[in-house]
Amino acid sequence: MGFINITRSDRMATLTITHGKVNALNLPLVRELQAALDDLEKTRDVRAIILTGAGKFFSFGFDVPELLKLDRDAFRVFLTAMTTLKMRLFTCPKPLIAAVNGHATGGGCMLVIPCDYRIMVTGNAKISLNEINLGVPVFAGSVAILTACIGHQQAEKFLYDGRILAAAEVYPLGLINQLSTPETLTADAQAKAREFAAKDPVAFAGMKKLLRQPFVEQAAATEAMSIQDFMDAWFGPAAQGILQGLKIH
Amino acid sequence: MGFINITRSDRMATLTITHGKVNALNLPLVRELQAALDDLEKTRDVRAIILTGAGKFFSFGFDVPELLKLDRDAFRVFLTAMTTLKMRLFTCPKPLIAAVNGHATGGGCMLVIPCDYRIMVTGNAKISLNEINLGVPVFAGSVAILTACIGHQQAEKFLYDGRILAAAEVYPLGLINQLSTPETLTADAQAKAREFAAKDPVAFAGMKKLLRQPFVEQAAATEAMSIQDFMDAWFGPAAQGILQGLKIH
Amino acid sequence: MGFINITRSDRMATLTITHGKVNALNLPLVRELQAALDDLEKTRDVRAIILTGAGKFFSFGFDVPELLKLDRDAFRVFLTAMTTLKMRLFTCPKPLIAAVNGHATGGGCMLVIPCDYRIMVTGNAKISLNEINLGVPVFAGSVAILTACIGHQQAEKFLYDGRILAAAEVYPLGLINQLSTPETLTADAQAKAREFAAKDPVAFAGMKKLLRQPFVEQAAATEAMSIQDFMDAWFGPAAQGILQGLKIH
Repeated sequence: MGFINITRSDRMATLTITHGKVNALNLPLVRELQAALDDLEKTRDVRAIILTGAGKFFSFGFDVPELLKLDRDAFRVFLTAMTTLKMRLFTCPKPLIAAVNGHATGGGCMLVIPCDYRIMVTGNAKISLNEINLGVPVFAGSVAILTACIGHQQAEKFLYDGRILAAAEVYPLGLINQLSTPETLTADAQAKAREFAAKDPVAFAGMKKLLRQPFVEQAAATEAMSIQDFMDAWFGPAAQGILQGLKIH
Repeated sequence: MGFINITRSDRMATLTITHGKVNALNLPLVRELQAALDDLEKTRDVRAIILTGAGKFFSFGFDVPELLKLDRDAFRVFLTAMTTLKMRLFTCPKPLIAAVNGHATGGGCMLVIPCDYRIMVTGNAKISLNEINLGVPVFAGSVAILTACIGHQQAEKFLYDGRILAAAEVYPLGLINQLSTPETLTADAQAKAREFAAKDPVAFAGMKKLLRQPFVEQAAATEAMSIQDFMDAWFGPAAQGILQGLKIH
Repeated sequence: MGFINITRSDRMATLTITHGKVNALNLPLVRELQAALDDLEKTRDVRAIILTGAGKFFSFGFDVPELLKLDRDAFRVFLTAMTTLKMRLFTCPKPLIAAVNGHATGGGCMLVIPCDYRIMVTGNAKISLNEINLGVPVFAGSVAILTACIGHQQAEKFLYDGRILAAAEVYPLGLINQLSTPETLTADAQAKAREFAAKDPVAFAGMKKLLRQPFVEQAAATEAMSIQDFMDAWFGPAAQGILQGLKIH
């Protein structure tokens, strides 16, 4: 435990990813975040949730050195937990605000896009789904959530391009809803959370379910297939070459 | 009868909602509008239909004082008629132009968004789906139609915000396709109706069906559930408190 | 044979439609293009495909004078081949770049919109799905692909309008992704093809399938019905009047 720091104030909760220098995602972290969401969903007086990262990164994505040690069965367990978490964020009945304090790439970006409102610092911080440049595909759920987030046309461009982009570059796509600075990010996120917290929670949850259900169904039909495809690519020679290279740095 | 005034000229028909000062929606009005559409659909030489309101309002939405008198069974009959009407507008094989002459809120807005082209006066007139601020959800059909009208991302923002907005504020969303003035609204609507009336009616109807069918299916899967959710919220203490307050004014 | 000119260089292939002055579409041409795609898909070292037209037209669409000679059975064979080709382009696992060198109307436009990236010359060249002005509907697959290409709202406007538009007019819709000139079109298309060719082909194909599958399913449900509707309109007196008129010119 100890990968997710939870704080509460007013009717808001803040979840802070805290794992080393880059907040890399591994199985215990993913499970802890899932458990935190389950708890907060049941906590009546939490009306909005902020998701952010500790230090200079939001999350750099998968913990590649650790994940490369896993065999197929263990890796499948991780991928399934990850895709479940992502859809859990997307369907959370309470408002979720992403406060993107630094780099959010690959799996890190996949935690940002399901949020209802996304604020990111300008400057050096970058965001991307750069899977195409690592030689691995994305998950069905990521495609569905990205499509909900920025529309189909932009989703095609963003995924095929795969470049890491600054907040100002993704703001016109709608991937980020508000630009901020390291100094103002917390206040901006709390202001937005307070705004959401003032809304009727039953009406909000009902609307969100109706709005997002079609994307959930789109993903459900093909998620198992996409996990299998991702596994095949991950354990293939092309991706392993790239990933083992990443490990060295 | 007498809630819907029908006029005809050239190959156009104009339906004018006429009910007191605010054109509030009750069961007889909804049924009369439905019947008028059924008739016009069968009338071969009507090639475009304009929908507008009498006086200073398009429609302020549900007739809350009257609807608060209804028990659950009677209220369900009203909601079912209302959701049926909205989908009837959305799937009408003939072109529908909304000429929004004044406030169009809640149920009033729900009559505007299914139209094929929406013109609204600038100035004091406001439009909104403000359900979230009344503590009630929206219907599955409204979400599907709103998504068709302005896209998923904008639909999320518009529904979660719930503020009443002027024409110029919703024009960038695509909720309104053309801005007008009280002096020019009728002429603008007729010019657009004439343009649609010149198109081949069979080709138009075929295209509209193909374009909108996916949204009809999306709504059909969850409309009954959303009516039940709306009922539960409406008869709950939070919404009743707000609605009884509205009644006084 | 001889309607499709195929050239190869680097890891790109270019398919050039070559049929008379206007590159009109008939059954042998459609089948030849389909066969060329089948071959290139299997050719491992082809990583991107450019689709363009010879001379001053991309393709003016259906070969109306020739198609008017066909009886219902033969016309149905043509329509089925055409709709199959269009979906084949849309689901091609390799990147497709449309280099629109001149007019692309009706069936010609239907070959452009399934491509992953669309470059068009500015100037006199026009693009449209002008079916509504010919009194015929469009196909379910065309609606699904157009929706994927420019979004639902823009698709409604584009189809109901039916006007022939210049590249600069459709660029804001996203129908065309890049403007070019007759002098630079080939180089622009090759530069983009090279960019796509550098991406991991398995990751690209996997993403494209996930992104486009929902639109394929949308089309599949209603394509047979839409072919029947198109046949009925085509052989009806209104469309025949217009089409026989086109034939004379």
